Amino acid sequence: MSDRSQIDTSPGALTRVPGFRAAGVSCGLKEESGQLDLALLACDRPAAAAAMFTTNAFKAAPVLYDMALLSRSHIDMHPQPIQAVVINAGVANACTGQGGLRDAERMARLTEAALSLPADSVLVMSTGVIGHRLPMDRVGAGIQAAARSLSPTGGADAARAIMTTDLVPKEAFLQLEIGGVPVSIGGIAKGSGMIHPDLAPVGAPHATMLSAITTDAAVSPAALDAALAAAVDASFNRVTVDGDTSTNDTVVLLASGAAGNPMIELGTRDYQNFEAALTGVCRSLAIAIARDGEGATHLVEIVVRGAASDAQAQRAAKTVATSPLVKTAIFGADPNWGRVLAAIGRSGVEVDPARVSLWLGDVQLVAGGEPLSFDAAAARAALKAPKVRFSADLGLGSGQATVWTCDLSYTYVEINAEYHT
Amino acid sequence: MSDRSQIDTSPGALTRVPGFRAAGVSCGLKEESGQLDLALLACDRPAAAAAMFTTNAFKAAPVLYDMALLSRSHIDMHPQPIQAVVINAGVANACTGQGGLRDAERMARLTEAALSLPADSVLVMSTGVIGHRLPMDRVGAGIQAAARSLSPTGGADAARAIMTTDLVPKEAFLQLEIGGVPVSIGGIAKGSGMIHPDLAPVGAPHATMLSAITTDAAVSPAALDAALAAAVDASFNRVTVDGDTSTNDTVVLLASGAAGNPMIELGTRDYQNFEAALTGVCRSLAIAIARDGEGATHLVEIVVRGAASDAQAQRAAKTVATSPLVKTAIFGADPNWGRVLAAIGRSGVEVDPARVSLWLGDVQLVAGGEPLSFDAAAARAALKAPKVRFSADLGLGSGQATVWTCDLSYTYVEINAEYHT
Repeated sequence: MSDRSQIDTSPGALTRVPGFRAAGVSCGLKEESGQLDLALLACDRPAAAAAMFTTNAFKAAPVLYDMALLSRSHIDMHPQPIQAVVINAGVANACTGQGGLRDAERMARLTEAALSLPADSVLVMSTGVIGHRLPMDRVGAGIQAAARSLSPTGGADAARAIMTTDLVPKEAFLQLEIGGVPVSIGGIAKGSGMIHPDLAPVGAPHATMLSAITTDAAVSPAALDAALAAAVDASFNRVTVDGDTSTNDTVVLLASGAAGNPMIELGTRDYQNFEAALTGVCRSLAIAIARDGEGATHLVEIVVRGAASDAQAQRAAKTVATSPLVKTAIFGADPNWGRVLAAIGRSGVEVDPARVSLWLGDVQLVAGGEPLSFDAAAARAALKAPKVRFSADLGLGSGQATVWTCDLSYTYVEINAEYHT
Repeated sequence: MSDRSQIDTSPGALTRVPGFRAAGVSCGLKEESGQLDLALLACDRPAAAAAMFTTNAFKAAPVLYDMALLSRSHIDMHPQPIQAVVINAGVANACTGQGGLRDAERMARLTEAALSLPADSVLVMSTGVIGHRLPMDRVGAGIQAAARSLSPTGGADAARAIMTTDLVPKEAFLQLEIGGVPVSIGGIAKGSGMIHPDLAPVGAPHATMLSAITTDAAVSPAALDAALAAAVDASFNRVTVDGDTSTNDTVVLLASGAAGNPMIELGTRDYQNFEAALTGVCRSLAIAIARDGEGATHLVEIVVRGAASDAQAQRAAKTVATSPLVKTAIFGADPNWGRVLAAIGRSGVEVDPARVSLWLGDVQLVAGGEPLSFDAAAARAALKAPKVRFSADLGLGSGQATVWTCDLSYTYVEINAEYHT
């Protein structure tokens, strides 16, 4: 089920899952007017929800709203049914004080009213500039328009409406069988800058990267939480563009149960298959974020194995993946492998330099701490491929991790220096 | 003594201290031939030495050589007298395996021979590209030439010879009185990229920034170690250019005792004055490194106060100072303060958003977690000054720290993407 070749990344993933409708409309929140900037997702019945949120201390108002709503499930063990998600792009509603909290709640109330849904059945996400208040008149008009536009083919518009500096929408769809019953998983994500997700479940409080995922599978609340946590840990929490964990990172998974499969419970083969499929969808979306990182000219994969633990491998790989010196060397197609080792060396993980080996693609550069003579032309060719891979073996243990990022180009500086609040 | 107006940054600082001679020569280690690339510093008598080294796990061969030499002082409590320091630029002699270790030792032996010094009286530093072996024939010729060129006015050449991507040499000189006797402190430093020093003494093993400091003060070994540790913690360990802690960072302080002052001992008023003066010299050099960071168009000062502890304040300030989004916003002169708060929020320190206030220069942007209306023209003016300052008050405690960095420009990308190994 983790065979990524089964994943369909064509437009419309979210609403290819039966029972979900979506819309993307323009209400004037983005600088270039006319761009889609408000997405709405609705389910034909109350759905079980699982979600993970940024660990940034400055959580945006919509994050605080959603966390409060979903944490009730954890207090009374009675899952809060969710029937819609409203997402705006252009204004993050972060660092907006008490007024911002009221705005986030108002987005939920307006959506509930527009869709005739009960109270506390809508989740909210925002992405865009920090520190600005939402123009609530425009948002309100946008919610009305989106509610009127909801469609079983609206997934592609929703995927475009949540983009900010993204160049392409990010969608992924996968089908699997549970107990002989076909079930579907569809997801969208956005994110290009301020990307270094560090997401945690509500229970254990913690870019902007946003992701909404739909499924018609019937999944028990505990299994849904566990599957999302495992999938996010192996996907969104392993991509970085600039190291800057956002105030707004949110992943929401809605499970309607409409497929009629036998309920997926923790600890079963069905659970394993569902978790693997969900991980496949999330990983496809996460890699799409790294590939579309601000100014990216290459997708970069950093693999660390032989570490003392998986956690140490991930720490080392993330340090390499956020090193400006490594990222500019890749942009410049220079096999400056010393920068990769220097980053591993400053990461704080256990390292014995004499045991470390390093590869660029298939070209080995270092063996047991000793630099090798290598084919410079082959190394440069590996740096000019669309996907560049550095892999290090620390020679200490069985810990391993893979992290995805992109290179650091002139365009990254342009996007972020010429962006004016 | 910490009044920086007393500090003289004109050329020749190192040899303005009586009894020290220096030289800078060209031996063909840098790409553009003819540039000075090997520095030699010598004292007219055995000097007490204190040093601090990078905490990077991939310590360069000269770092390992110096650490082994100086750690003897800590084992037998008999300080190793040092009489010269040899420094090359162009090749870092890092990640060079066993051969590199032999090369570093050979640099020391060749210097001892050229200056007729006893064994184990020379420290070695290197900076430049990682993973390349030193061309020892050229280095040997350079050491011979430098030994012949040693001069009591050679400090300025030494300061130029250790530069790599630095645009300007970095020098600082200060005089003070100890027991009525005038004593001098002179220092040089280099560093522009791979700058995020995290230096620790030999005893507690731990970019490339290099610094050599001379003084004719008589200082007890314990006082010398303590003064350097305190000075480095308040200076070099508070600058960052790119977050990439180098394999080669080294600070060496030689104290000849030739001034004839009463020996400076720990816990005395004289010690306090000496530590403050040394801190002033180190801070002047450290700020010069941040100002001359690769591609820098502004010196940036990040102040965090009101943190739960000084360590938390420093962690928060360093996270802001290494944020690509903050640094590109400063390059673009955009008062995008949300990026500053987002960086504080992801730093892992204790934060209560409702207590946080933020200023850009003298313009307050946030008060108690609420965004303020502010004079956008004044904010943009503050971003166009040669020195840009963001200061945050977390409102929690009395912890504070100041960190220096620079902005992130197109030129940073150019320097590091068009640099070819």
